[in-house]
Amino acid sequence: MSTLLGDIAQLVDGQLHGDGGIPIVGAAIIRDAQEGDITLADKSKFQHQLTVCLASAVIVPAGFEPTGLPFVTVDDIHDSFAKIVAFFRPPRRQQAFGVSAAAHVSGTAVVGSDTVVCPGATLGEDVRLGARCVVHSGVRLMDGVQLGDDVVVFPNAVLYENTRVGHRVIIHACAVIGSYGFGYQLIEGRHRISAQLGYVEIGDDVEIGAATTIDRGTYGPTSIGTGTKIDNQVQVAHNCRIGKHNVICALAGIAGSCTTGDYVVMAGQVGLRDHTKIGHRAVLAAKAGVINDIPDDATYVGIPATPEREQFVKLAALSKLPQMRKDFRDLQKQVAQQQRSQTKDAA
Amino acid sequence: MSTLLGDIAQLVDGQLHGDGGIPIVGAAIIRDAQEGDITLADKSKFQHQLTVCLASAVIVPAGFEPTGLPFVTVDDIHDSFAKIVAFFRPPRRQQAFGVSAAAHVSGTAVVGSDTVVCPGATLGEDVRLGARCVVHSGVRLMDGVQLGDDVVVFPNAVLYENTRVGHRVIIHACAVIGSYGFGYQLIEGRHRISAQLGYVEIGDDVEIGAATTIDRGTYGPTSIGTGTKIDNQVQVAHNCRIGKHNVICALAGIAGSCTTGDYVVMAGQVGLRDHTKIGHRAVLAAKAGVINDIPDDATYVGIPATPEREQFVKLAALSKLPQMRKDFRDLQKQVAQQQRSQTKDAA
Amino acid sequence: MSTLLGDIAQLVDGQLHGDGGIPIVGAAIIRDAQEGDITLADKSKFQHQLTVCLASAVIVPAGFEPTGLPFVTVDDIHDSFAKIVAFFRPPRRQQAFGVSAAAHVSGTAVVGSDTVVCPGATLGEDVRLGARCVVHSGVRLMDGVQLGDDVVVFPNAVLYENTRVGHRVIIHACAVIGSYGFGYQLIEGRHRISAQLGYVEIGDDVEIGAATTIDRGTYGPTSIGTGTKIDNQVQVAHNCRIGKHNVICALAGIAGSCTTGDYVVMAGQVGLRDHTKIGHRAVLAAKAGVINDIPDDATYVGIPATPEREQFVKLAALSKLPQMRKDFRDLQKQVAQQQRSQTKDAA
Repeated sequence: MSTLLGDIAQLVDGQLHGDGGIPIVGAAIIRDAQEGDITLADKSKFQHQLTVCLASAVIVPAGFEPTGLPFVTVDDIHDSFAKIVAFFRPPRRQQAFGVSAAAHVSGTAVVGSDTVVCPGATLGEDVRLGARCVVHSGVRLMDGVQLGDDVVVFPNAVLYENTRVGHRVIIHACAVIGSYGFGYQLIEGRHRISAQLGYVEIGDDVEIGAATTIDRGTYGPTSIGTGTKIDNQVQVAHNCRIGKHNVICALAGIAGSCTTGDYVVMAGQVGLRDHTKIGHRAVLAAKAGVINDIPDDATYVGIPATPEREQFVKLAALSKLPQMRKDFRDLQKQVAQQQRSQTKDAA
Repeated sequence: MSTLLGDIAQLVDGQLHGDGGIPIVGAAIIRDAQEGDITLADKSKFQHQLTVCLASAVIVPAGFEPTGLPFVTVDDIHDSFAKIVAFFRPPRRQQAFGVSAAAHVSGTAVVGSDTVVCPGATLGEDVRLGARCVVHSGVRLMDGVQLGDDVVVFPNAVLYENTRVGHRVIIHACAVIGSYGFGYQLIEGRHRISAQLGYVEIGDDVEIGAATTIDRGTYGPTSIGTGTKIDNQVQVAHNCRIGKHNVICALAGIAGSCTTGDYVVMAGQVGLRDHTKIGHRAVLAAKAGVINDIPDDATYVGIPATPEREQFVKLAALSKLPQMRKDFRDLQKQVAQQQRSQTKDAA
Repeated sequence: MSTLLGDIAQLVDGQLHGDGGIPIVGAAIIRDAQEGDITLADKSKFQHQLTVCLASAVIVPAGFEPTGLPFVTVDDIHDSFAKIVAFFRPPRRQQAFGVSAAAHVSGTAVVGSDTVVCPGATLGEDVRLGARCVVHSGVRLMDGVQLGDDVVVFPNAVLYENTRVGHRVIIHACAVIGSYGFGYQLIEGRHRISAQLGYVEIGDDVEIGAATTIDRGTYGPTSIGTGTKIDNQVQVAHNCRIGKHNVICALAGIAGSCTTGDYVVMAGQVGLRDHTKIGHRAVLAAKAGVINDIPDDATYVGIPATPEREQFVKLAALSKLPQMRKDFRDLQKQVAQQQRSQTKDAA
């Protein structure tokens, strides 16, 4: 199936510059584009890459007029490019078959209208699902789990008992929510586990990444605030209270009883000591190791986590330390020499 | 359902101080408590938090007499509070239905008395389960897996072939035990995988966290000692021999052929180089990067891991390094000035 | 079943030194060997360990003649030892039962010859499997997934829609491939997710570890090159292009749009900032935090990642910094003293 560049311009309601009659067979980013593809470039700094890439056309924002290939100008290049990609490679749609006969659904589970439960999914006692949810194959919703409306749970995710999930939440494959908190007391040489009477509570519009784990609270909730997005392989320990609209990147580890404000950002592999409090809009750089509370609007870096500027000054000084050692030894010699001269003079 | 504070005091066999007639509707930690809730506080340093929190009563240990709200004194506040929480929100019980007809059980599997196998679980050839186990939905016990008595395996955990598990072990959701060791030889430009003839052996009273992975040994066991507790998302590589009663926190990574003594503690995101030996009761701080053997009873910190005191001295010196650079430059100038004076004097 | 050492020598086509009539009952590495076992040692530096271990015989390469116990000399001790281990503990074989009636297979799925699909596995619409694959229990192959020939997917792994997998690939349990990329735009106080129109493409002879996650590209592929081996719990973000024959160890995190050359090695817990480019044959040490592009053949260490030699010089200088501070203060005093003398002289 070949389409003309003019058709593409029309599809995205864009302004065509160049020959609309050339055939376009696909859409790909600059790095991957082959002849016949249309690509995208959102800044003029990509002109060089456009010149050397194989794409036959490019979609750009108003104000950037690339040279060397025909282009289409649009208001929102990402929205438009998504439309073009979807035109060439239409996304698959979830089929609306209701509750599969091959799902394991307890007699006391309640399923909302237009909700899909796929083969091999498990719904325990007293599970309650809202409307228009999709529960994929192999998902385990243990007893008492509640989902709001329009929730999607991808395959093999596990929600332990009594997990409460808001509306429009996405939970990715193999995420585990509500596992036991990791709290022990050493009694007569053995580690005795703490109470596991709590649960996990997830607000609206949250996204939970693949293989992410969130432990239940000891007595009450571990909670994830509305609008917060959690990447893959993040660990949130028991009793944490994560604020609203946080962004938490992959492999971050949040120890027990931490709290975060709203709009906090944690980059990859960040670690938080238990009971730390992170202020609103704080930013924690990749691999930061947080051992103290962080104020609002601060950016922290390093292990242990340190205000950004302070850390950079320290690292810069460390970089120059080997040279400074040499200079220091030179100075020691010079002072010793002066000492000898002075002593001689005094003699 | 409303209950009076006096009833609660009776439930936990505690001593009531204040009005036993006030109604109590729930139980929550100080941070989460609402009006009508009873909360807990184990130290007098929480008096201020109690004053500002909404709880209607508090449970405390003997010796702490909080002011401003009625309280109940007990011997073990955590045991007692767990009893109260369970009174208001009774934990769900596993139903004892035996082996579900919707489980996939091989003809050669042997299941102990009072063991539950949930719908959608898989038991391979020659699998042997002890008594009173619970194997949740989606658990995969591959050929030759053996579980002792009173083992709980949460949903979607996977035990590869020949994994041997002791008594009273808890394995959380999506844990993977017995996957291939990550050992390769580069031969003619291709990585050839090592032998995968070993297995994993887990002692009694072990807990394995959600999404934790433990690789099989090359020729024999990777082993986890009795009483050891492993958090979520920990990686234990092939041929490791983890001692007894270790505590290993989330996102720690233990490379191949490491051994640890007993009562070792690893905090979150610790990493061990392959073939390192960790002494008894050693403590590795969060994010420590261990590249050498660690003696008994030592506490190590940092990357590379360094004895705690030494590391603190280094970090303190680093903090003062920027100022020291300034002072050093001043001293250089002063010495140069002296040099000029001395030269002039000598002239 | 007891076997004689002479039989073992014959089994591996090795040269026997010592009494071939002693009974051998098993095979284990030096650390684990008991009386009656044969063990292996590839270097003479293990002589001491052999002397104190309980093994009754040892297999060694030509040129190493251990003392104190009978030995068998072979060309490739690992190949030979694997043969012996397999003799005593034969590995289990996958049974060839075709597509289980207890698997959930869509009407449009196509399964190659001699491919096994286990009970409780799910094959979505338009899934295409090559020949001689094994799809274990609980594996979820969503719509449009394609596997080449001789692919093994271990239990509970999840491949999102349109994932393309080459030949002879091994995917371990609970791996998640094709989950959503973690890209957001903050619009009017809410994080809006980017397009999720891409997929994941995996070359031939790749191994993907347990609980590893690989996100789909935004518009096109996230790709893993032929021959690359990925350990457990690795995160590969959207749009990455991983080269050929890479070795990526556990808990490494690769942020979005990174590219790597061929034969790159990343040790455990490495982190890459998004959009970084790693040169061919580069080596990134454990826990390295990469924030800039890395040239071919370089070895980088530390946070931020620094050329190996440079980092060692810095760490050595840091180690000596506390002493240097003392020496510096001494020098300050000495210079002040000289200053006083000079001033006095000048007076």
